Amino acid sequence: MMVNNFSIEKSEAERCSYDVASKNFIDGSDSPSSFLERCINKINSLENDVRAFVNTDFRNSRIAAKQSDTRWQNGTPLSIIDGMPIAIKDVMETASMPTEQGSPLFKNWSGGRDCAAVAALRDAGAVIVAKSVTTEFAATQPRDTRNPWDTSRTPGGSSSGSAASVGIGMLPAALGTQVIGSIIRPASFCGAVGYKPSIGGINRGGSFDGFSQSCTGILGASLSDSWNVVRAITSRVGGDAGSLGVLGPLEMPPPRLPKTIAFLETSGWLLASANAKTALQNALTKLQDSGVSVFSRHDNKIVSEIEDAIIDSVSISRDINAWEGKWPLNTYALDMDVSKLSEPSKERLKAANNMSQHEYGDVLARRLNARATYSKAKKEFDLCVTLSATGAAPMGLGSTGDPVFTVPTSMLGTPAISLPVLECDGMPLGLQVIGFEEQDAELFSFASAIEKKLK
Amino acid sequence: MMVNNFSIEKSEAERCSYDVASKNFIDGSDSPSSFLERCINKINSLENDVRAFVNTDFRNSRIAAKQSDTRWQNGTPLSIIDGMPIAIKDVMETASMPTEQGSPLFKNWSGGRDCAAVAALRDAGAVIVAKSVTTEFAATQPRDTRNPWDTSRTPGGSSSGSAASVGIGMLPAALGTQVIGSIIRPASFCGAVGYKPSIGGINRGGSFDGFSQSCTGILGASLSDSWNVVRAITSRVGGDAGSLGVLGPLEMPPPRLPKTIAFLETSGWLLASANAKTALQNALTKLQDSGVSVFSRHDNKIVSEIEDAIIDSVSISRDINAWEGKWPLNTYALDMDVSKLSEPSKERLKAANNMSQHEYGDVLARRLNARATYSKAKKEFDLCVTLSATGAAPMGLGSTGDPVFTVPTSMLGTPAISLPVLECDGMPLGLQVIGFEEQDAELFSFASAIEKKLK
Repeated sequence: MMVNNFSIEKSEAERCSYDVASKNFIDGSDSPSSFLERCINKINSLENDVRAFVNTDFRNSRIAAKQSDTRWQNGTPLSIIDGMPIAIKDVMETASMPTEQGSPLFKNWSGGRDCAAVAALRDAGAVIVAKSVTTEFAATQPRDTRNPWDTSRTPGGSSSGSAASVGIGMLPAALGTQVIGSIIRPASFCGAVGYKPSIGGINRGGSFDGFSQSCTGILGASLSDSWNVVRAITSRVGGDAGSLGVLGPLEMPPPRLPKTIAFLETSGWLLASANAKTALQNALTKLQDSGVSVFSRHDNKIVSEIEDAIIDSVSISRDINAWEGKWPLNTYALDMDVSKLSEPSKERLKAANNMSQHEYGDVLARRLNARATYSKAKKEFDLCVTLSATGAAPMGLGSTGDPVFTVPTSMLGTPAISLPVLECDGMPLGLQVIGFEEQDAELFSFASAIEKKLK
Repeated sequence: MMVNNFSIEKSEAERCSYDVASKNFIDGSDSPSSFLERCINKINSLENDVRAFVNTDFRNSRIAAKQSDTRWQNGTPLSIIDGMPIAIKDVMETASMPTEQGSPLFKNWSGGRDCAAVAALRDAGAVIVAKSVTTEFAATQPRDTRNPWDTSRTPGGSSSGSAASVGIGMLPAALGTQVIGSIIRPASFCGAVGYKPSIGGINRGGSFDGFSQSCTGILGASLSDSWNVVRAITSRVGGDAGSLGVLGPLEMPPPRLPKTIAFLETSGWLLASANAKTALQNALTKLQDSGVSVFSRHDNKIVSEIEDAIIDSVSISRDINAWEGKWPLNTYALDMDVSKLSEPSKERLKAANNMSQHEYGDVLARRLNARATYSKAKKEFDLCVTLSATGAAPMGLGSTGDPVFTVPTSMLGTPAISLPVLECDGMPLGLQVIGFEEQDAELFSFASAIEKKLK
């Protein structure tokens, strides 16, 4: 068993910031190749215990990094992430490595293509180092990854490998996806920044992830690494077809301290550990000491309305996902090999088969209502905050943990960031900051100022 | 060269109506197997000239039809289309046949899955007989299919094989897709009913067709066959994720004569042949004689506003599709084999690479404006009508014809039906009836009444 010492003073993830390192690429005191070798060394020393990756591609990565060295030396990098080593959640197509979706049905499967986000990353000069472990079909059935801070604990899911590798500083960034809690929760458990964009914010072409409230996002060593990656992608391929995609400056927007924050307890508060609650409350107190006004359901009517509107997030999201997930589970069961589906997948297919189009319409309407209520907060508050998880990553690898704190923003379609600024039981814990649809850049500004206050 | 005699009195397509035939399945005077054999005979006699299919699967189709025979005999059909032989446009995944997208890059490619619509069709008992020819990636580069009424003419595209096979009565229905004019135009040229649902109306999971204004739809022998197919699909797998999908009764809604019709000239009117215009005007006169009020830009302000709002449909759609089509063309060119892309595809990729995210935002906004203007028509008119094409299918197979009459509804996201009730130069010509978003059932009612008046 590996137990690392997590400290928020200077996290391992932060030491792997590409944004910081790249400042030394121009004068040649550092280079993408050197950066990559440091990553590979760390991967080689930790991967046996952490098991973050399904596949790695060091050979081609070294070739790509060398080409990036030359561009930086010539002062002509393709983007500010030129040369950045990055891992891709294994539900997204990559031309250079198989895409197995955490399922034996897709062992060694490859479509020969890059998904839209990966094609954009390569176009920006990024180096696709690895495919990171996902739970089966980005749902609940865990795979091999362990929490890098304590390998007897879950890393969270479904973006397990992305969060674990970035949280322990193997890589500066990795792509993930979230439909329930698959970015924010593992980011919290592993000590990475987790960023789930506004719904539709990153083009999902070529990602096996078609849910209506699902979103591609970033696990990052820092806020700026996360932002730099998202804009490198969206400036090239935008959002989902029909969505503009995340907009804003190509480099991290400047920090801006919020004036008013809504603290959302969500239905998670009853389930949160005492230490997690204390950690959050201490953080809120610090923010108040800095002049930020914090409102909650206990002293504000609109917060109270929002709390009521998101109380059913879990059941609404579960029903929406059941109907939308009927396909492809039905063809996997019928036309491929049902014995290779996990029990939870078979259960989900059963639930889907019991649903009608009209029932789906009903839950869609409920989601729409919740979104309308939430949008009232925009006028009153700069952002909302809550925990990213009920506490430290739970012991054991049989479950990826409770997603209760992450479902509301998935259902609402709002941008959310898990900031690795809290600590609980000697393990990382995320502070979740939540913004408003298509205002991702503003959320990064607020998050950056909050992070500075809390460190 | 094959030239058949098209007559609207009783089209070949109508003779192949499954809705009509299935009435005799219960007493055993006809059966799905007998129906299938009639289809196979017609396919065998015509396919050499028409070239509608990339692949056929008669062996498994006969097995499936036999199973359907039994269900009808037992009075337990899975749906009203149980046993219906149907072809699938070759951009949609089928577990039983490859999906080649009209591109040499995907020769013999198979993902081993059924797409959502096909999985639903099989669940409803339908028999997947063939994959029908598509232009390359459902875009402009024609493939082998010829117009079944005159093989020296184009069948239209991109759903070329679907329209040709249904128009000449090889099959009662086929799936197609439309992002510009790929259902309505070939339906018009080949004498089939063409139905493009409201945007998001049919679940596109597993279809290689991710454009924001694209839609899966039906080429049908009759209105009722088209309706029966769409509802068999959507009652099982709904629309695109996040969309409810086409709603309404499981069987064809009753005919209802509209009171007010807006006749849209569109920018196509200047390009339409004199005979096509006469055909449409005669039809409108007949409707007026039946008591329907018809308004045009020349006598109605709202129609005039709509005409102005859709005048740029072609350029708006072209720009939106360019940006959204950047992926996967970029990975096909870079990671697969650029020499296997057609020149038009390479040109489209070039156009996409010259576009920015902000330019995409601008055309999205223009599309949104056009949709808002069109929605004003809902209060004033029961539906809109125009031609489905500028005239009869053009001579030659080098182009799939001018889509000018079909782009507005693609851009607007409204449901549209091409009714094979007009004739031009001895060839079929469609009357296009256009409804309002998510009111597909109402449009079928109106279309049915109009069809009866014009035959």
